[in-house]
Amino acid sequence: MQQQSPSSAVGVIGLGAMGMGIASALLEAGLPVIGCDVSASTRDAFVAQGGRSVATPAELAAECDVVVLVVVNAEQVEAVLFGEQGAVAGLAPGSLVIQCATVAPSFARSLGERLTAAGLEMLDAPISGGAAKARSGDLSVMSSGSEAAYAKGQAALEAMAATVYRLGDTPGAGSSVKLVNQHLAGVHIAAAAEAMALGMSMGIDPDTLYEVITHSAGNSWMFENRVPHILKADYTPLSAVDIFVKDLNIVHQTGRELRLSMPVAASALQQFTAASGAGFGREDDAAVIKVYQRLSALELPAANDAQREGEP
Amino acid sequence: MQQQSPSSAVGVIGLGAMGMGIASALLEAGLPVIGCDVSASTRDAFVAQGGRSVATPAELAAECDVVVLVVVNAEQVEAVLFGEQGAVAGLAPGSLVIQCATVAPSFARSLGERLTAAGLEMLDAPISGGAAKARSGDLSVMSSGSEAAYAKGQAALEAMAATVYRLGDTPGAGSSVKLVNQHLAGVHIAAAAEAMALGMSMGIDPDTLYEVITHSAGNSWMFENRVPHILKADYTPLSAVDIFVKDLNIVHQTGRELRLSMPVAASALQQFTAASGAGFGREDDAAVIKVYQRLSALELPAANDAQREGEP
Repeated sequence: MQQQSPSSAVGVIGLGAMGMGIASALLEAGLPVIGCDVSASTRDAFVAQGGRSVATPAELAAECDVVVLVVVNAEQVEAVLFGEQGAVAGLAPGSLVIQCATVAPSFARSLGERLTAAGLEMLDAPISGGAAKARSGDLSVMSSGSEAAYAKGQAALEAMAATVYRLGDTPGAGSSVKLVNQHLAGVHIAAAAEAMALGMSMGIDPDTLYEVITHSAGNSWMFENRVPHILKADYTPLSAVDIFVKDLNIVHQTGRELRLSMPVAASALQQFTAASGAGFGREDDAAVIKVYQRLSALELPAANDAQREGEP
Repeated sequence: MQQQSPSSAVGVIGLGAMGMGIASALLEAGLPVIGCDVSASTRDAFVAQGGRSVATPAELAAECDVVVLVVVNAEQVEAVLFGEQGAVAGLAPGSLVIQCATVAPSFARSLGERLTAAGLEMLDAPISGGAAKARSGDLSVMSSGSEAAYAKGQAALEAMAATVYRLGDTPGAGSSVKLVNQHLAGVHIAAAAEAMALGMSMGIDPDTLYEVITHSAGNSWMFENRVPHILKADYTPLSAVDIFVKDLNIVHQTGRELRLSMPVAASALQQFTAASGAGFGREDDAAVIKVYQRLSALELPAANDAQREGEP
């Protein structure tokens, strides 16, 4: 049923922390992989790992029948697919686009329709798990698409992911479930920061708070994962504040489309927006706690406290 | 060091779901227990289990040197200790009050000072874990107080709790850590309801959402525990909406005392307040999702869907 094209490489567009990890995992699984990124040094890094690279999506399209998009947002998806050097015009009919960015479900649905009209298949396939799991091929994928799309993407998905949730037969469902996850993840990070600010403001030792809460009903995956960054004062971005400014804005936009009021997510969005406005947008998302520090007498744990205590 | 009193029973004031469980666990541990509740039928139920009961805190005080308070709020703590038939006037010097209600840390601190002035000991000892763990003696206790208070309360605490966190040597620290837990628990329940409302409004099957989110970074202890109530449309109160109206109001009040703005908790408080205003205050706290249902086109899972599907 699928049209066979002479090309058969897997292309990865966007070699950031997640995209580079995915491209490496695909290589390791023995697939022919071509990477594409605007940055020459990033392309070189992938070549140094044994991959091939090209500078533009158009070049990549000429050699690939499966293209994995690991860019940041809908604007970049639009550009790499339909822009001046975009991939769509060059892809052979029946080729597959696996779209991994977190985008609005309405955008994912409309993208699916446009790619179908262009004779292409699409998997709506947002990813979860972070850079380390991308590198080891252990991501979770929240996906939807046709049987034909899954059949064509099977080898790539197996190499990328430990778990592939199949959530529906058209694009949109994958992005919808990812958006629910991002709603909760964003609220839980803001809540973790706010609750730690409350506890420390009452004079409770932050390490003790972490110990008690992670064994109590107030625990969340994000509390357990992000509060250690606050305790160590290590705001090296694993995932940045600005990612949640983006994702909670998609929650907000989708709520507006659905006419569904979501005040809890809205309050979390405002805290991430404030963190970004205060200059912390590129720090780790746990830096949202600095909003509370700037607006109160709160003192946060300092880096290297342990060493300092040991000094004369 | 401790003054010995001729009385040595453990009194439990407040035989609701939690108090009855604690009183039963104390009995089972072989301690002499006297229960006290305003409801005669509740007292009878405890007597039927082999306990003794009295109608007023004053009567209880005459026979106990350890009194466990398992009432609902600070007003009730005030009444059962210092009211007309209150316990404090009748307790022998050196007796211990173990205060388990969730109250403002500032109230717990001040209560400790007043009980010390009355010649009594106090453990600030909010509990966590629910009625089933109360009954089996497996609660978590977030506590603070003097060495003397812990020594006097040891047998009762061991019978009540699987875990006793010792968080400081004066009342206030236990209530502070409990308040941080309640902040997170309340926000996470409201967020779980809001995120489920978002997902269902986008057309995603709620059971699928539960399956994916509980295996993803958006998970929380409360999401995992409360969303099944929504899926089964079972709003039998294990913990009621009005409990979080109360506890998030204590968060709000404490933030006001500290001059710490907490917009995420504030938005969750408003959703529980709306649920209570809409008539759901005595339903399970997961009924906060009905606020979203009342304000949108959201359809919630109905009770007994499974049976109905099987009908002709």
